Amino acid sequence: MILKKYLTILFCISLMVSKAQTQNSKTGFTIVPLGVKGGLDESNLSAYLVAANGTTNYISLDAGTINAGIQKAIEKKSFNENSPEEIQKKCIKAYFISHGHLDHLAGLVLNAPNDIAKPIYAFPSVIDVLKNNYFTWKSWANFASEGEKPILNKYTYKPLIAGKEIQIPNTELSVSAYSLSHVNPYESSAFLVRNANDYLLYLGDTGADTVEKSNKLTELWTAVAPLVKAAKLKAIFMEVSFDNSMPDKALFGHLTPKLLMQELHKLNDLSEGKLKNTTIYITHIKPCANCEETIKQQIKEGNQLGLQITYPVQGKAINIR
Amino acid sequence: MILKKYLTILFCISLMVSKAQTQNSKTGFTIVPLGVKGGLDESNLSAYLVAANGTTNYISLDAGTINAGIQKAIEKKSFNENSPEEIQKKCIKAYFISHGHLDHLAGLVLNAPNDIAKPIYAFPSVIDVLKNNYFTWKSWANFASEGEKPILNKYTYKPLIAGKEIQIPNTELSVSAYSLSHVNPYESSAFLVRNANDYLLYLGDTGADTVEKSNKLTELWTAVAPLVKAAKLKAIFMEVSFDNSMPDKALFGHLTPKLLMQELHKLNDLSEGKLKNTTIYITHIKPCANCEETIKQQIKEGNQLGLQITYPVQGKAINIR
Repeated sequence: MILKKYLTILFCISLMVSKAQTQNSKTGFTIVPLGVKGGLDESNLSAYLVAANGTTNYISLDAGTINAGIQKAIEKKSFNENSPEEIQKKCIKAYFISHGHLDHLAGLVLNAPNDIAKPIYAFPSVIDVLKNNYFTWKSWANFASEGEKPILNKYTYKPLIAGKEIQIPNTELSVSAYSLSHVNPYESSAFLVRNANDYLLYLGDTGADTVEKSNKLTELWTAVAPLVKAAKLKAIFMEVSFDNSMPDKALFGHLTPKLLMQELHKLNDLSEGKLKNTTIYITHIKPCANCEETIKQQIKEGNQLGLQITYPVQGKAINIR
Repeated sequence: MILKKYLTILFCISLMVSKAQTQNSKTGFTIVPLGVKGGLDESNLSAYLVAANGTTNYISLDAGTINAGIQKAIEKKSFNENSPEEIQKKCIKAYFISHGHLDHLAGLVLNAPNDIAKPIYAFPSVIDVLKNNYFTWKSWANFASEGEKPILNKYTYKPLIAGKEIQIPNTELSVSAYSLSHVNPYESSAFLVRNANDYLLYLGDTGADTVEKSNKLTELWTAVAPLVKAAKLKAIFMEVSFDNSMPDKALFGHLTPKLLMQELHKLNDLSEGKLKNTTIYITHIKPCANCEETIKQQIKEGNQLGLQITYPVQGKAINIR
């Protein structure tokens, strides 16, 4: 009898723990930045792993650096395992590629030989670049599900439709994609990730609407403003590549602190001044002497809205509740 | 009078120093390996800087990793300067790309925005891959001298003709290229680098003649055998990607210790048993658990010729006299 009682108590405790874990995974996100810079250093290029809190079911938002980034994350105790290859295989459930530029996908292509079968989600224009430029036999090998034969069929291309949310298998996450302009008419993407009622927005490379002669960012802000108002959009990851001294004609589809603030003012206005609820993570700073310090100073000076603005660190896990 | 005498002595000393430096640069090579592995870790992919001894006028044989490799070389005191970007700009005078696979050229493409005008030497088939797959506006930007418009014209394509030696401007070096087979009919290259009477041979990825159903390596060995006999070929950099357990059909145009030795026996026979005069540097080991140890052990066991075989270390300068 006593044993039965103990077993029952043990079972209930295990259920409670399980329930707590489930509840935990229904709130917020864990992000492991595998690469945070906008160029040059091959071991630190744009890639952000995102999972529901309390799980290791990550999706990779862009994949500029994978292996070297996981090595940094292991050093920083962001994973329990210590094999970068095993972590890539087991913990990354899908890739989302914002656009076809090498600094956003080199890690995916270079590590394909070691990886296991997974989906690659992207807009059709981006899949075309992967298919025609990278996963070919002259430039690498065709590890994907379409394109030049022989097809190795490890990665399955999953074309995205703008604004349509899809659930990502083997994760707790759903994603909707939005089109961005990155040197008009070239297309980049933003990914809105949802875990239950919490949202995170990641933008690939993008120019400002004024410079790109586009309304893509305004459309994105209009779509996510209700989530900002409702305090459901927990974080925005957004690029600032150059400091304010860079002339518009030399921006090549990127943002400066001034243009970032111009765009964030639009979003703040559309969300009735509630953008303070959302933490802004600045990505993709292009390295040069003192660039990082200059950009941070200019963002600080331009932050008249008093927004929470911060900088992801390669390998250091971010917990958003 | 005394001042004049001192000035004359000083002038002679400076001439002697200058002459000594010139002689020095006419013997042997300095090699800085910027990346030595055959995959996965984006910060350590095939790239070998080679200069005449006593100079910093390097050519880059392949360019898988540039910036992260120069960082490692700075840590290891292989350069006097401490800015990777400045070292790339000033010390690399030309790139030689063996074939179009991403792990041999990602560093060149990713660092192009920071670089200055330079030549890229390669066979026409390799230039076609750079032109059609990498230096395009959908996959990156066209930093080269031909291809998709607008042309940024930073890099000038210099097509190589097999067996024809060319002098490389702004260096003390001359180079002849030889065609290799890397999954027949795909072409890779070997580069024979000359500094006065000293030679160094670098092979990009290559399969063995028996597996590739090719005679490309036999042709190369025939061409360089006289240099081995004359003790002028100081070093061979050659790939071993997999251990002996990898079946031929899964080699994808690469070598194992057994196939390496099979090829080196051919070269040794052609050069009347003089291959001991040449140091063999093993490149491009593909990472996996214990692969490196297994490959080294199998090479040691297979080295019945008693050749000098060694392993380059990322960032650590090699001096060959």
